[in-house]
Amino acid sequence: MTEEIKIPQKHPRAESLRIREKLIRHFKSGVVASAGLIAHGRGEAFDYILGEKTTQPALKAIKATAATLLTAEHTVISVNGNAAALASKDIVKLAKITKAKIEVNLFYRSSEREISIKKILEEAGATEILGIGETASARIPEVGSERRRVDPKGILIADVVLVPLEDGDRTEALVRMGKKVIAIDLNPFSRTAQFATITIVDNIVRAIPTLIKIVSKLKTKSEKKLEHIASTFDNKETLGEAIHLIHRRLSRLAEKGVYLPILEEDES
Amino acid sequence: MTEEIKIPQKHPRAESLRIREKLIRHFKSGVVASAGLIAHGRGEAFDYILGEKTTQPALKAIKATAATLLTAEHTVISVNGNAAALASKDIVKLAKITKAKIEVNLFYRSSEREISIKKILEEAGATEILGIGETASARIPEVGSERRRVDPKGILIADVVLVPLEDGDRTEALVRMGKKVIAIDLNPFSRTAQFATITIVDNIVRAIPTLIKIVSKLKTKSEKKLEHIASTFDNKETLGEAIHLIHRRLSRLAEKGVYLPILEEDES
Repeated sequence: MTEEIKIPQKHPRAESLRIREKLIRHFKSGVVASAGLIAHGRGEAFDYILGEKTTQPALKAIKATAATLLTAEHTVISVNGNAAALASKDIVKLAKITKAKIEVNLFYRSSEREISIKKILEEAGATEILGIGETASARIPEVGSERRRVDPKGILIADVVLVPLEDGDRTEALVRMGKKVIAIDLNPFSRTAQFATITIVDNIVRAIPTLIKIVSKLKTKSEKKLEHIASTFDNKETLGEAIHLIHRRLSRLAEKGVYLPILEEDES
Repeated sequence: MTEEIKIPQKHPRAESLRIREKLIRHFKSGVVASAGLIAHGRGEAFDYILGEKTTQPALKAIKATAATLLTAEHTVISVNGNAAALASKDIVKLAKITKAKIEVNLFYRSSEREISIKKILEEAGATEILGIGETASARIPEVGSERRRVDPKGILIADVVLVPLEDGDRTEALVRMGKKVIAIDLNPFSRTAQFATITIVDNIVRAIPTLIKIVSKLKTKSEKKLEHIASTFDNKETLGEAIHLIHRRLSRLAEKGVYLPILEEDES
């Protein structure tokens, strides 16, 4: 395979192409699964439709997430290949300021992938990484893939689980176990998005840095204030807003009849 | 990489998952590029939004395509890795009934990939495949990638080029050379979709079999009738219909507030 993406400096999709290049690099190093590349493409399409920016409903969900993380007993950030490839530094930073644990949890589990992911998380500054090898000895009910394997010191006992790029079955299983699940998912129609306690409809590369900023801001607020922010958040309503936003945007595009110079099928 | 997709029989996304599995298989055999997996994911997202069926505007475009192919002097079907992986048999069948030539044209050209693609097209029954190795000796203007290399017996002299899953730059270059370009692209906003003479906003796995059926039906029609069908087709209008269809569908989803049990980020 002699693929190499050359990104023209003024390419209208430069940022999206840089992210894509990063993902392919991590695919070659074994961090990202081939199905993870396809999943990324789906995300790209939704991000494109959303305008490739953090929307108002996403900001609302990020604020509720910050409040939830700051009042949680035991938060775990569940990391898969794509999340590690695109946001390892931010994930480590977020874990530090919220005292969350980091757990590797893969649909396609292999020790090679676990080790590759552990490595880039460590390079990003993580000191403790749960869910590697035999430490992922517990099982959660009703999940059909290798993702059912969780760490008894991590996801099993967590009250809040942040799952960037998660699958629907697992989100549902975690919610049924009584956990608050925070999903980062660009597709507001997905089961993950619908089942989660809080759904951030945004790209992980924008959502986590924004979350870190808002956590820093809210850190000094009282427990009561934080609980108020978290409890008044309505996920169904916010998802509805995200869907309406997509709807309005497509409406404008359809009216104008213009194309946006993005998302071509330009490298296959 | 120990990936294997297990598809539950009654999975709501069984068909989409089967296509995905096929693509990953061909990725492993070197036919599909890693960027092709991402491109497929983008297509999946748009297909999902379109309802994963051939829509009325797509049917209209397919009919205009059939009429165009039946009145063309020299049609070439341009094949890349994803097209070969997903539709090689149908491409060969379509080439036979329309007397079109098949040319391999890759963004990421390598002799290994060319040979892999040639092989599956031959297995699908193709006897002549243009664009392999040194035969791709001509260059078309204004295309920045290895896709500029074309066969002097193929795309260079074609009056009609069918480009399933093409990039925007190349579509534009071919149109500027005075060729009729027919694109199959699930994203109606893409530059490919906007530049093409006829854009079929549909999944290649549905569009080509439908095209074959319509070609068979229209085969007995007069040249005059066929030219009428082709010349009365309005691509801008038909793209507008596709966009409105997406818009209406999202509108219904937003109103119902229901999720569709599809397109989860379920395997990364």
